[in-house]
Amino acid sequence: MRILDIIEKKKNKIALSDEEIQFWIDGVTDGTIPDYQTSSLLMAIVLNGMDEHETAKLAEAMMNSGDVIDLSCIDGIKSDKHSTGGVGDKTSIALGAMVAACGLKVAKMSGRGLGHTGGTLDKLESIEGFNCFLSEEEFKKQVDEIGLSIIGQTGELVPADKKLYALRDVTSTVNSIPLIASSIMSKKLASGSNTILLDVKYGEGAFMKTIEDAKELANAMISIGNKLGRNTMAMITDMNQPLGNTIGNALEVQEAIETVKGNGPKDFTELCMCAGEIMIMQAKLAESKEEARKMLEEAISSGKAYEKLLEMVKAQGGNVEQIKNTDLLPKSKFITEMKSKENGYIGNIHSMQLGILAMYLGAGRQTKEDSINYAVGLKMNVKKGNQVKEGDLLCTVYHDEELSQDWINKFYDTFTYSQEKVNSIPIVEDILG
Amino acid sequence: MRILDIIEKKKNKIALSDEEIQFWIDGVTDGTIPDYQTSSLLMAIVLNGMDEHETAKLAEAMMNSGDVIDLSCIDGIKSDKHSTGGVGDKTSIALGAMVAACGLKVAKMSGRGLGHTGGTLDKLESIEGFNCFLSEEEFKKQVDEIGLSIIGQTGELVPADKKLYALRDVTSTVNSIPLIASSIMSKKLASGSNTILLDVKYGEGAFMKTIEDAKELANAMISIGNKLGRNTMAMITDMNQPLGNTIGNALEVQEAIETVKGNGPKDFTELCMCAGEIMIMQAKLAESKEEARKMLEEAISSGKAYEKLLEMVKAQGGNVEQIKNTDLLPKSKFITEMKSKENGYIGNIHSMQLGILAMYLGAGRQTKEDSINYAVGLKMNVKKGNQVKEGDLLCTVYHDEELSQDWINKFYDTFTYSQEKVNSIPIVEDILG
Repeated sequence: MRILDIIEKKKNKIALSDEEIQFWIDGVTDGTIPDYQTSSLLMAIVLNGMDEHETAKLAEAMMNSGDVIDLSCIDGIKSDKHSTGGVGDKTSIALGAMVAACGLKVAKMSGRGLGHTGGTLDKLESIEGFNCFLSEEEFKKQVDEIGLSIIGQTGELVPADKKLYALRDVTSTVNSIPLIASSIMSKKLASGSNTILLDVKYGEGAFMKTIEDAKELANAMISIGNKLGRNTMAMITDMNQPLGNTIGNALEVQEAIETVKGNGPKDFTELCMCAGEIMIMQAKLAESKEEARKMLEEAISSGKAYEKLLEMVKAQGGNVEQIKNTDLLPKSKFITEMKSKENGYIGNIHSMQLGILAMYLGAGRQTKEDSINYAVGLKMNVKKGNQVKEGDLLCTVYHDEELSQDWINKFYDTFTYSQEKVNSIPIVEDILG
Repeated sequence: MRILDIIEKKKNKIALSDEEIQFWIDGVTDGTIPDYQTSSLLMAIVLNGMDEHETAKLAEAMMNSGDVIDLSCIDGIKSDKHSTGGVGDKTSIALGAMVAACGLKVAKMSGRGLGHTGGTLDKLESIEGFNCFLSEEEFKKQVDEIGLSIIGQTGELVPADKKLYALRDVTSTVNSIPLIASSIMSKKLASGSNTILLDVKYGEGAFMKTIEDAKELANAMISIGNKLGRNTMAMITDMNQPLGNTIGNALEVQEAIETVKGNGPKDFTELCMCAGEIMIMQAKLAESKEEARKMLEEAISSGKAYEKLLEMVKAQGGNVEQIKNTDLLPKSKFITEMKSKENGYIGNIHSMQLGILAMYLGAGRQTKEDSINYAVGLKMNVKKGNQVKEGDLLCTVYHDEELSQDWINKFYDTFTYSQEKVNSIPIVEDILG
């Protein structure tokens, strides 16, 4: 088999065989296929596509390029969820605690963030002592015992994806549904859970700009998961404004805590409830969505979800006092209130720009080497469609350095106003799978 | 400027600016753009194309990546021709002598062959002592004095093309009209002639399989040449059977000599006459094609074309006795006559396979390191449409080693027979420009 023939085939829009895809990924993994051939093939895939079968095979070959976590030692169905990423996305922390309190086994491997705010690991590390780097054995033991662990990748998961992603990043071959879907799913598959819930975000602050694109990506991932024997479902959710009210690591942990206690923002709570329903159904712990929702409501009102969050933080070495009293979480030096200069209804909120503004405060990394300031961030006081008057609070800014005029100007540019009523957007647009 | 943005643009089917193309080719030439980015861009160009303006700019940027020959010291219009390559193509040798005898200044840089038979340089080197490596000054002096020189590339012409071609070859990005056209034309432009005649071959033994593809390539090259101030024309010629009767280096030189003496095969003579007419018109040495043809006929019948060939061989150190008496050219140890096993009309002749069979005899290189056996080759006795009977001579094989049964079987497989009359194919299909 020759890689040149494989490139030629894809260039001519012919589907690759299982063996050809395996040969390519083997060569990427062991370095025998040079980058210049892989980048040529990647561009051919971007422009000529891959069918469902090829995409599933690609995900499978990538999954098998490194360690594959075996969770079979843990009783019952193991549940995973994944978000395609957005601004203010602290879902894993709150949702994990909620569904674990309902009896699910959540073995979640998360990532760090690059660009705007931190990833789930960065957020959890704003809790003093929280350890994201358990051994595989510790991780499994914790999931078995308390039903929930969120850690960074253990072992060498999906090395082929790391190599391909690094190359895609510098060859303009990122935005391809088969490549994105197989990249995400290879990691989910290698993480070993039985069920996968995908939170595919659309909108201005998401990777997928339209509902249609988000659905296409979701369907591609569902197809991969189902072909490889995992119960896979997807939610299509809104990212035209930040999720919940907070952007920034400790601020988001605080909001997740409020949410598992039943005091979270409406949109974020609804997202967690809807996701929880699906996960509980996937794990066959309820017969209907209504029953699942009751379980979740009960987990919150009884305090069990909050207790589960405390258990996880404690098990991973975090300072539970900071969870009990969030005033003990990292605090910024300054707090500035940003007030509306206009009257009207809030139209569009440029959420990606808000994420970038939070990054400038120190909440995210501009380069891999940057460290994160856990205390800083934004707490929004308005959502799309809210009516505001001049002088009304738009947002509270938590910062360690004085805000520059440029930052302030950019902040005000993130909002548009309308004199006519603006409809709010439902947080969950659709459920697929 | 960033190469990543340039790749992104071409991926999205947007035309690149002059500056972007220049930036890319500069980076290819000085090695600052890594191969994996160039190969990604190449695949995007293969699949999304380039318009005429981009293609001309690409050819220009490649031309300027290295030395550019200045022929202005030679009086008059300097003429060049280029063939896209075929089996049995000895045109430059005969045609060069014919038009130089009519007063043209032909400054031709040729290449070697890889795969089936040798290139023009290999053919000329079957003449004892023939020197293809004149200095630029010697080359210009010879063109000025006798009107004809055929040499290998002098200086460092079009280094960007060398690098791009090497990469295209291993990334399945060869077959793209803009890339092929700009590659060929960058070399022609850098060679410094004022007029360019392109012999674009189509058919089974050519790179372009159909007349339509050959015309598309021809038009792309004509557009480049004209945009960059060169009078450029193209012939679309048949390569569904070998050109003339011979395949092999010394055999082809012998056929070229016969042709300039007026005793060449009909198809090859017609190709040279037709090409000569165009070149003479391009050089403004005749008012009409009829006048040009008369000049060519006179050059042949008067012996001037033959004298011109002798002059060139002598000027480049070749043994003219071998031209005067072709029995002195390299001779093979064995001569075998291949006879028809069937009755009928010759249908298709698999000319590429005949080229490969000649290569197996030693007439061409399988790898760059192989040396060439000048003596061996094939002399065909039939053309498409000829009626043959069992036992009639198909071909004389000149060889130094015994023919294997496999070789003989493959030889017979190159012919198909028909019981109905088969039309012959005109050698010149069309003239463009």
